[in-house]
Amino acid sequence: MSTPFRMHRARVETLVDGVFAIAMTILVLEVKVPDLVDQRSAEELLLALWHHGYVIAAYFFSFAMLAVFWVWHHRLAEKVRDIDLPLLVCIVVFLALVCFFPFAAALLGRYPLNLTALLVYVPLLGLIIFVQTMFYAIAIRRKLIDESVSTEAMLLAHQRNLRGCAIFMVASVPTLLRLDPFVALGGAVMGGLIFWRAKRLVCLRDKRINDTPTSSK
Amino acid sequence: MSTPFRMHRARVETLVDGVFAIAMTILVLEVKVPDLVDQRSAEELLLALWHHGYVIAAYFFSFAMLAVFWVWHHRLAEKVRDIDLPLLVCIVVFLALVCFFPFAAALLGRYPLNLTALLVYVPLLGLIIFVQTMFYAIAIRRKLIDESVSTEAMLLAHQRNLRGCAIFMVASVPTLLRLDPFVALGGAVMGGLIFWRAKRLVCLRDKRINDTPTSSK
Amino acid sequence: MSTPFRMHRARVETLVDGVFAIAMTILVLEVKVPDLVDQRSAEELLLALWHHGYVIAAYFFSFAMLAVFWVWHHRLAEKVRDIDLPLLVCIVVFLALVCFFPFAAALLGRYPLNLTALLVYVPLLGLIIFVQTMFYAIAIRRKLIDESVSTEAMLLAHQRNLRGCAIFMVASVPTLLRLDPFVALGGAVMGGLIFWRAKRLVCLRDKRINDTPTSSK
Amino acid sequence: MSTPFRMHRARVETLVDGVFAIAMTILVLEVKVPDLVDQRSAEELLLALWHHGYVIAAYFFSFAMLAVFWVWHHRLAEKVRDIDLPLLVCIVVFLALVCFFPFAAALLGRYPLNLTALLVYVPLLGLIIFVQTMFYAIAIRRKLIDESVSTEAMLLAHQRNLRGCAIFMVASVPTLLRLDPFVALGGAVMGGLIFWRAKRLVCLRDKRINDTPTSSK
Repeated sequence: MSTPFRMHRARVETLVDGVFAIAMTILVLEVKVPDLVDQRSAEELLLALWHHGYVIAAYFFSFAMLAVFWVWHHRLAEKVRDIDLPLLVCIVVFLALVCFFPFAAALLGRYPLNLTALLVYVPLLGLIIFVQTMFYAIAIRRKLIDESVSTEAMLLAHQRNLRGCAIFMVASVPTLLRLDPFVALGGAVMGGLIFWRAKRLVCLRDKRINDTPTSSK
Repeated sequence: MSTPFRMHRARVETLVDGVFAIAMTILVLEVKVPDLVDQRSAEELLLALWHHGYVIAAYFFSFAMLAVFWVWHHRLAEKVRDIDLPLLVCIVVFLALVCFFPFAAALLGRYPLNLTALLVYVPLLGLIIFVQTMFYAIAIRRKLIDESVSTEAMLLAHQRNLRGCAIFMVASVPTLLRLDPFVALGGAVMGGLIFWRAKRLVCLRDKRINDTPTSSK
Repeated sequence: MSTPFRMHRARVETLVDGVFAIAMTILVLEVKVPDLVDQRSAEELLLALWHHGYVIAAYFFSFAMLAVFWVWHHRLAEKVRDIDLPLLVCIVVFLALVCFFPFAAALLGRYPLNLTALLVYVPLLGLIIFVQTMFYAIAIRRKLIDESVSTEAMLLAHQRNLRGCAIFMVASVPTLLRLDPFVALGGAVMGGLIFWRAKRLVCLRDKRINDTPTSSK
Repeated sequence: MSTPFRMHRARVETLVDGVFAIAMTILVLEVKVPDLVDQRSAEELLLALWHHGYVIAAYFFSFAMLAVFWVWHHRLAEKVRDIDLPLLVCIVVFLALVCFFPFAAALLGRYPLNLTALLVYVPLLGLIIFVQTMFYAIAIRRKLIDESVSTEAMLLAHQRNLRGCAIFMVASVPTLLRLDPFVALGGAVMGGLIFWRAKRLVCLRDKRINDTPTSSK
């Protein structure tokens, strides 16, 4: 308790890179080699792969999603100076969700038309986006953003995160609609609220810059 | 024999990070995609996932445990200057146990009510905690702690490790009780002993600080 | 939009190394332990492994291919100063294909005489080679090559990439011939075109060197 | 051809660390969760794990072997200044064999009494040891040893490698004896030859040191 908890960012990032590399590679384990009756029949294998088509497409889509998350996390994390306990918890939850992603992708790849599979995949995406936004919001609140990052750049990144959350909320409305109209309405309203919050942040930023014109110079 | 065995800490830590990243990701492989009779039935998949519930909960719990061990190891290892042979053996045993953890987690996830599964999981946790404490105790004894770490911080970390061992011992008493009352009693007594040892360390530390008041200045 | 997208090369390379390490190791998961009737029969296991022979050979060949791609990527990437968005997309596509490689290798290992398996493996190799060449061509066009690399070395590397593409095209003609003579002809023609393009690059390079003889001094 | 092939050691080592971390972790995938008839029966699970005992022991043994190889490789590689093409080929072959190790370990763990399983495991160990020794011998011959390493330390390490080869040869005689007496004799003779070569190296070293007494000062 006497010494505050701090961790070097570089060390945490090594683990993050490792986990992402493995989660990406594990995705392919779901693409199984089909069993054939006639081993030399090109048509049969082609047909089997064709039935696998959705799984293969899901692999490439999930890979792209993980890559986007990785780039996004990297660009947020490089703005942070030090990792303290709440940020570390955020990162661990983020990694736990990322590692869980291959399972959700496999579920959706196997049962593309099943609502439950969709209701695992979409909220998981939402949670990952939410934890990322939280991570950065906490870093701002605890003043752990690197000094080299200007207040403007800091708020811009936060605003982009919020906008990402809002876009995800709106995009998930069709899925939620299949579940229940009221839940879908709730999602749409929350997306709107986050959009409005992101907008207000811009005004706040503009005001702050106008208030303290010397700090930006 | 002429040159003493030494290894750069950074190199060893890369392997540790890699092993932890993979052990964490491998946990999810136990969460299997269930087989459905009706591929489009949302209820059937929901029910199947519900039966998987324990496995999924075990995944997140085990992930958190591994994250705690990783942070703990990192915070101990950053205090160590150099890795010599006994420390390396400690780290390898630690990694072997960490890699074995996904199996124990899978066992407990599949058979949550089975005593044997619990008796693999709990002692494994204990062994990992014990090897960590050993690692640091050996580092202190062999004077491999970095000079930048004060004697007080060094002893504080050791005391925390011992307290962690003691807490684990006491926490595992209910499990041991299911096995045999005498074993549980032994565990409780050992927990008490380690607590007492940790307490004595504080006195020792206070005394040492009082004896050498110049070194801390 | 105000700040251009840039990423540190070191960070991207950590992910690349991680993905390659895992893709290489995952290859071996396809080599399954055979089931025996008589567990102690050395002959039966030998026979089972003999039938596995093709899978084992495919493992070592695929491992060598991945190693070649890794070395090749490394030698291209070390010439690049910074990673911007198009280059990042190239790398992600490259990694997605590399991670997909173990599946293609497993497919070919299991059905060595099946045309479809060959028609997954060979185009995948081709795509990987093509994306690598693209990566470097984009880096040249966007002027992201490190200043320490001379124009001559830069063009030489690009020419080698093109020559690699051309050789692959010509080498895949026998496979394409099994599919359709016209496709094979197309492949051969394209191989020739790329060869010619690589050759023209040499002339261009020689001309450029003659034009600016002071820069090379 | 104009520029000689060189690679930074650090980059290659990242891949080596990654491959070792994964090969070590993949070992545990062979330890399968047993299927139980009565899910709550502690005795049944204990019995099932007891039958798995050999697999679990093989896991820890193989983990220790891989750790030894990793430390050994690290201690050789840190003496090498640069990685050129022949050394890189050595490392790739080394990694391919290391990645193949989990399969051999799984084979031996499943069929401990089967001669063929032993005849896959033991020669694989031998090949790994041999490739390591080759790696260092090539580095010495191509003068790629770091200048900070004294000639004496360089030869001492080579001698240790050779002695390791010889010890392995002699230790594998019982296994070879089960195959054929003449093969075992050949192994024993080769072990002796390598021992003699290692011994001659000491004389050579002593002579070289006596000849050039100024360089060691």
